[in-house]
Amino acid sequence: MKKIALTGVKPTGDLHIGNYFGAIKPAIALTAEYDARYFIADYHALNTMKDAKELNATIRQVAACWLASGLDPDKVIFYRQSSIPETFELSTMLMAFTSKGLMNRAHAYKAAVQDNNEKGDDPDAGVNMGLFTYPVLMAADIILFDSDVVPVGKDQVQHIEMAQDIAQAVNFNYKQEVLKIPQAAVQEEVAVVPGLDGRKMSKSYGNVIPLFAPEKQLRKTIMRIVTNSQGVDEPKDPDASQIFLLYKLFASKEEQAALASRYRAGGMGWGEAKEELFRVVNRELTPIRERYDAYIADPAGLDRILAQGAEKARPIAAATVKRFRKAAGIDN
Amino acid sequence: MKKIALTGVKPTGDLHIGNYFGAIKPAIALTAEYDARYFIADYHALNTMKDAKELNATIRQVAACWLASGLDPDKVIFYRQSSIPETFELSTMLMAFTSKGLMNRAHAYKAAVQDNNEKGDDPDAGVNMGLFTYPVLMAADIILFDSDVVPVGKDQVQHIEMAQDIAQAVNFNYKQEVLKIPQAAVQEEVAVVPGLDGRKMSKSYGNVIPLFAPEKQLRKTIMRIVTNSQGVDEPKDPDASQIFLLYKLFASKEEQAALASRYRAGGMGWGEAKEELFRVVNRELTPIRERYDAYIADPAGLDRILAQGAEKARPIAAATVKRFRKAAGIDN
Repeated sequence: MKKIALTGVKPTGDLHIGNYFGAIKPAIALTAEYDARYFIADYHALNTMKDAKELNATIRQVAACWLASGLDPDKVIFYRQSSIPETFELSTMLMAFTSKGLMNRAHAYKAAVQDNNEKGDDPDAGVNMGLFTYPVLMAADIILFDSDVVPVGKDQVQHIEMAQDIAQAVNFNYKQEVLKIPQAAVQEEVAVVPGLDGRKMSKSYGNVIPLFAPEKQLRKTIMRIVTNSQGVDEPKDPDASQIFLLYKLFASKEEQAALASRYRAGGMGWGEAKEELFRVVNRELTPIRERYDAYIADPAGLDRILAQGAEKARPIAAATVKRFRKAAGIDN
Repeated sequence: MKKIALTGVKPTGDLHIGNYFGAIKPAIALTAEYDARYFIADYHALNTMKDAKELNATIRQVAACWLASGLDPDKVIFYRQSSIPETFELSTMLMAFTSKGLMNRAHAYKAAVQDNNEKGDDPDAGVNMGLFTYPVLMAADIILFDSDVVPVGKDQVQHIEMAQDIAQAVNFNYKQEVLKIPQAAVQEEVAVVPGLDGRKMSKSYGNVIPLFAPEKQLRKTIMRIVTNSQGVDEPKDPDASQIFLLYKLFASKEEQAALASRYRAGGMGWGEAKEELFRVVNRELTPIRERYDAYIADPAGLDRILAQGAEKARPIAAATVKRFRKAAGIDN
């Protein structure tokens, strides 16, 4: 039997190919190995996204993105956190077994405090309880579905350790295995996707190639990639060019070798290299974009898929809460 | 139209006549004035009651106690917090609008920190997240039912102010009245009920007269009331005797006047005064005890009453969460 893996998807707007190669593709690849569950963490997003229209749109965009990128809702359970009310009941129950000291040590909270201290502000300035209790809600997300493993990057390991601590405190108190203890499955570092300016592709640097831009805009964006002043005739080093590094993500081995030769031979200008890049990017993104646009054009259909996921998820969630309630003496 | 009032009942074992006159009777009296809702705060209790059997029994005892004391489940909505999953969803939503600084200032939390500081412990030693987030869960309890007022003692006013702050933050953010702002209805101080030793009746002093002790044990407890060494013949001051102060809670004006005269005349010993007290206490408590015993003997019937209350409560709760979700852009 495959192990159960849980992945949370944060609603984020303006998805770009950095997200695609850094998070979405590797996560979808795990569906082969695991009995995988994916949820859109919409109540986590409420902590920072206080604009209703933006949150509403972003939730559907991220759902459409993952489906368009190849997540198969018949093979995995794909649902919205907000469709599983058991999440919040479990979170409330876990609060009673979570020491405040544990939360004080959470990386995200500590970073906010340090930031405030550096500015000479009150340590808790701008910190809301959603941020502070985030690890408990995340523990509930994980524990609710009897997750064996949570695939995470190194920087997320602490959250899994906290979920372990909390679940163990429950089991210890009731002297039985009420909750399954999840394990972190630390993922290999994914290759950094370079942005238009050669730095890591990131929304905050404004150097992204959007995942769902129309063809014309995609081409225009790629043409904006920063290059050096080498002339057309000069031989060029492919590995020093972010055009080529991006090309490698989309092209076959043969295509990569062929383009590398042309770089080294000289006679190819940056404009031509960008055209080659655009060709392979557009080749991969076109079907994804078309699927994405179709999902976005049919929000009712998208909602139906998520509702079907929730229907599969709820009995699992209800069973966990029932088990915990029984152990705790709350039997209504 | 009557205002909506909400009262939370904490599951507590070993109920005594101090609880009865100090909390239960005044709260039930409010049903005349308000459209009253009463809930058993069983998930609040989980913060401190980690023994399943104890929590389970205590929840039913407190429910039976309030019903036996005259709470009419046909006139009020009487339910268990744990039967209203919307409570926990609303609580999660409110977290995003609650500044951590507000929670840092909560009396109960500050008292715990001060206690730790005095002992030289870590400030957060022994503090769980259930205690720390208690005001948010309480705000959810209140706001969920569109409560106009929350009848509270002076020491509880802060909780209502926090609920106001949080609800106002939500309304301000979405520029509409998503949530009703509750008001505190500060209750007059109730007369202190003296215990067996003359100090305030309190479980922690071990000086209580239990509410549901069998007649024989009730008599025995009353006989243990501490008296001075005045002889039978000596005239006695009724207002200096806790026997008489307790008698006043149970006796008619005429009975009070008659017994006061006998005190002052001399010729009545403490034993006789205690017998008089036992008579009136037992007169009032016998029907309550009988009803209580009947509820305890029929847990299925008791559960049915609470389930009917939950049935009345849930549509109100669901409407509030739906309104909030819609305002926030979470529309699944």
